[in-house]
Amino acid sequence: MEPAGPARVERRLAAILAADVAGYSRLIEADEEGTLGRLKALRAELIDPRIAGHKGRIVKTTGHGLLVEFASVVDALRCAAEMQEALAKSNAPLPPDRRIEFRIGVHQGDLVVEDADIFGDGVNVAARLEGLAEPGGICVSARVQEDAAGRLDLAFEGHGRTGPQEHRPPSPGVPGVP
Amino acid sequence: MEPAGPARVERRLAAILAADVAGYSRLIEADEEGTLGRLKALRAELIDPRIAGHKGRIVKTTGHGLLVEFASVVDALRCAAEMQEALAKSNAPLPPDRRIEFRIGVHQGDLVVEDADIFGDGVNVAARLEGLAEPGGICVSARVQEDAAGRLDLAFEGHGRTGPQEHRPPSPGVPGVP
Repeated sequence: MEPAGPARVERRLAAILAADVAGYSRLIEADEEGTLGRLKALRAELIDPRIAGHKGRIVKTTGHGLLVEFASVVDALRCAAEMQEALAKSNAPLPPDRRIEFRIGVHQGDLVVEDADIFGDGVNVAARLEGLAEPGGICVSARVQEDAAGRLDLAFEGHGRTGPQEHRPPSPGVPGVP
Repeated sequence: MEPAGPARVERRLAAILAADVAGYSRLIEADEEGTLGRLKALRAELIDPRIAGHKGRIVKTTGHGLLVEFASVVDALRCAAEMQEALAKSNAPLPPDRRIEFRIGVHQGDLVVEDADIFGDGVNVAARLEGLAEPGGICVSARVQEDAAGRLDLAFEGHGRTGPQEHRPPSPGVPGVP
């Protein structure tokens, strides 16, 4: 179906990264100021520089989440993997109840672009994938795995034949996707 | 796997349209000058203006084919459908052996961009889909059909569950993809 009205909607293909802090309410209840301060520092030191390094554009942020757009699936997934590795290192010395871990979902699709915002199924799918990820993990759609296959040294675990695919932080000796 | 060397490859998601004249050798053998002249006129009058109208970029041309890049799948498929409709009208009054019909393949994927050229699996898949299309038809990958579903009034016929999908020029009363 064509969109109603004479103006054509602007669309573009993009990779979408949705990230959210796992157990945010619990962290805030336990230590509001400490959590907010650490989250701010993680954004400034670990997260935002990696997004910029992979030419990502932060579309919007909430207190505990991010929506980021990339021109390339490979760049988005590389950024997600680097973010999770850096966060894992930063969390390692902390007691489990003070760790700030993100769930990340990555999808790609044909989006509607309006001003600086993005809309469409693709955005919803990325958010749903994020909800399926383990804390510290990355959940991607089958087409993202397809686009990344042989281009990134990441291992995936399937959630069903054409369902979402999960990448957990790398452990030594895990072979990449062929 | 990371690309070798320090320089990172530039990548972007794009929709790729591959088009080629069906039976080109036969047409050229039968009437070389006439075919080349008609092909040139079709490009100038019917094809290139539609590509420009949907913000496509002609990446390369051969005597009988085109490779075009679009930012959006929906734009690429809309352009392909309009091209085939216009060509069908232009061919209608001609005897079958003088008709210039194109096969079109449309795919989307994460491409490697170098100078003005594009490379990668995505380009090869678009070319293979083009080879599978009927003269006057459009063959698309499953992910293109997914991205277009509900956004374009086109009917598709499947070539298997996750295989390529074929769109033939519209006939009245064929319902769109839901």
